[in-house]
Amino acid sequence: MRPIKLFTPGPTEVPWRVREKMARPLIHHRTAEYRTIQREVIEDLQRFMRTKNPVLLLASSGTGAMEASVVNLTRPGEKVLVTVAGKFSGRWKEIGEAYGLDVVAVEARWGDAVPPEEVARALDENPGVGVVFTTHAETSTGVLQDVKSIATIARERGALVVVDAITSICAEALETDVWGLDIVVGSSQKGVMTPPGLAFLSLSGAARERVERNRERAYYFDLNRALAAYDDGDTPWTPAIGLVTGLNEALKMIGEEGLENVIERHARNARATRAAVRALGLGLLASVPANCTTAVVFEDGNAEAVRKHLYEVYGMRIAGGQAQLKGKIVRLGHLGYYFESDIFTLISGFESTLLDLGVIEAGGRGVQALFGEFHEM
Amino acid sequence: MRPIKLFTPGPTEVPWRVREKMARPLIHHRTAEYRTIQREVIEDLQRFMRTKNPVLLLASSGTGAMEASVVNLTRPGEKVLVTVAGKFSGRWKEIGEAYGLDVVAVEARWGDAVPPEEVARALDENPGVGVVFTTHAETSTGVLQDVKSIATIARERGALVVVDAITSICAEALETDVWGLDIVVGSSQKGVMTPPGLAFLSLSGAARERVERNRERAYYFDLNRALAAYDDGDTPWTPAIGLVTGLNEALKMIGEEGLENVIERHARNARATRAAVRALGLGLLASVPANCTTAVVFEDGNAEAVRKHLYEVYGMRIAGGQAQLKGKIVRLGHLGYYFESDIFTLISGFESTLLDLGVIEAGGRGVQALFGEFHEM
Repeated sequence: MRPIKLFTPGPTEVPWRVREKMARPLIHHRTAEYRTIQREVIEDLQRFMRTKNPVLLLASSGTGAMEASVVNLTRPGEKVLVTVAGKFSGRWKEIGEAYGLDVVAVEARWGDAVPPEEVARALDENPGVGVVFTTHAETSTGVLQDVKSIATIARERGALVVVDAITSICAEALETDVWGLDIVVGSSQKGVMTPPGLAFLSLSGAARERVERNRERAYYFDLNRALAAYDDGDTPWTPAIGLVTGLNEALKMIGEEGLENVIERHARNARATRAAVRALGLGLLASVPANCTTAVVFEDGNAEAVRKHLYEVYGMRIAGGQAQLKGKIVRLGHLGYYFESDIFTLISGFESTLLDLGVIEAGGRGVQALFGEFHEM
Repeated sequence: MRPIKLFTPGPTEVPWRVREKMARPLIHHRTAEYRTIQREVIEDLQRFMRTKNPVLLLASSGTGAMEASVVNLTRPGEKVLVTVAGKFSGRWKEIGEAYGLDVVAVEARWGDAVPPEEVARALDENPGVGVVFTTHAETSTGVLQDVKSIATIARERGALVVVDAITSICAEALETDVWGLDIVVGSSQKGVMTPPGLAFLSLSGAARERVERNRERAYYFDLNRALAAYDDGDTPWTPAIGLVTGLNEALKMIGEEGLENVIERHARNARATRAAVRALGLGLLASVPANCTTAVVFEDGNAEAVRKHLYEVYGMRIAGGQAQLKGKIVRLGHLGYYFESDIFTLISGFESTLLDLGVIEAGGRGVQALFGEFHEM
């Protein structure tokens, strides 16, 4: 009877308007009707990613678009640099190694950002790096990476810049063209409020030149095929029609609220969540917090008990820690379709759980703290 | 106002039960609830693909699962054999060449099947072929390939057998284990009545051994990662949750009708469609017709006019010819969720179109012919 609500940093809640759109009879993809939908999706993504670059749609998870970036931009043995401070930024390293690249990894503690000056030093110590791969918002820690500075540093040294913005698109200020980002990767189940299975990436002129020189390095993820089809308003393989249709509606909703308002809503929800966590006497993992998710530290290993109780008793699904953070944190998600009242819902359940489990002695301080952020008092 | 109906061989019509299921609030994938759904999907796919082998789910189009088969089973320079008699069987050749394989192609006219004895001769003339890649039902021509005989021939010569059954699963008799098929590839938007974006493949013990020796040849499509996650009831990347949920419902529907009845319904619909086409005095392309789609030849190039008129005036979407068949055929799709009355709908529109365009002089013979197939008269 009790409804389940997702407060996970991906997949995120999908608005009814999006689900209703996807529930309509399926249309065929080789039609004017589908081409219009796809063109609108691409134009909206360009608008929200702040780019004039082509945006390619891929029927895959975000990881597929990350792999497409690596395999199309690089050649085996090529030197690349990756910033690693969590599970998802570590994925750049894994993919690079799987494709035989010479990977220079600049690492930081999980919970910190990689300092741009360390990227500069590593690039100076390792001449010949062709591409820098970095992560805008690290979902496993809730940390925001200073992509703008890293891009400037990389470009000054002649490297292309590829950004995993899967968890930051429509949630953080992101300036693809102004910052000079060559590839920016996103996916459907995050800030753009659509079910998973659809990824996308933007491609600069410089990236496109590199891709065109790198023919025949992939098939399904061959961006040359995707670009050739793109120029005809098409896709090389059957697209994920239903998901593209859903994304079309989700992006319209974001356009109606206005990108700046959407980002400000995310920032406010994140600030409010952090204020509540602090008021509850708990520690925050992220030294530079992102708007997507708030990682809360449980030194005594209560994390999994909290996560389980919050779901089983209050019907709210939050994420735990991954890899080295397993059992040590919970992640309160507020990425996508979440408004003030949703944050009250989340904190009420979280605080009730802490009370039920005896982690805190009295309830009210967390929810109270939200008022201070959502209202001028 | 007029409803649009798909009579395309993929994507196919998605039943309301499936769309309604997908319209429900999204669930998270790292949960017992999702694991149950995924387990049911896998068990149903095993049942309908007639195999005890593991069935892996991939968030991609069917082409992605084809690529996964090639990249995980083979090594660059390895000799493989492909049967080619259409656009989709030609894809095996393209993927093999993209990955640097030594591809022996046994070709047939588009509209014919590749004779198994030619495969035997090619294998005898080209010793050392490690894998035979073939296509059960060729969607571009509507031809059924004798996969059972090809598999026997390949196995006798020590080669593994990989089958693209994307357009045949739940539409044709397919015996994965009895015929000894090492990998069988399927996708969501065909006989299993779900939107596109989800692919799957079964993997025999021999294929699995080969895959395990071939580590680090891919990342997103790395079947070792998929197998490791599979053993935990999991997927390596975020799955296409909504599509898996939809497929779960679609497979339940197929189970309720019964696999044999579903296949017999497809065979009857295909026979009836062919009878109507013949009664209209038109030619059939396929020498060995499959149950998925009926390709109708228009020697005088009327194909595109028919396709356009049928859509614009009667709201029925059929497919045209692809590549060398462009403008020369139309394909009447009856794959998936189509019953007697749908075939009457399709033929009524098709026949009306031919009458409107002056291709035939009087209407009624096509629809009349359906009675002969659907009823004992």
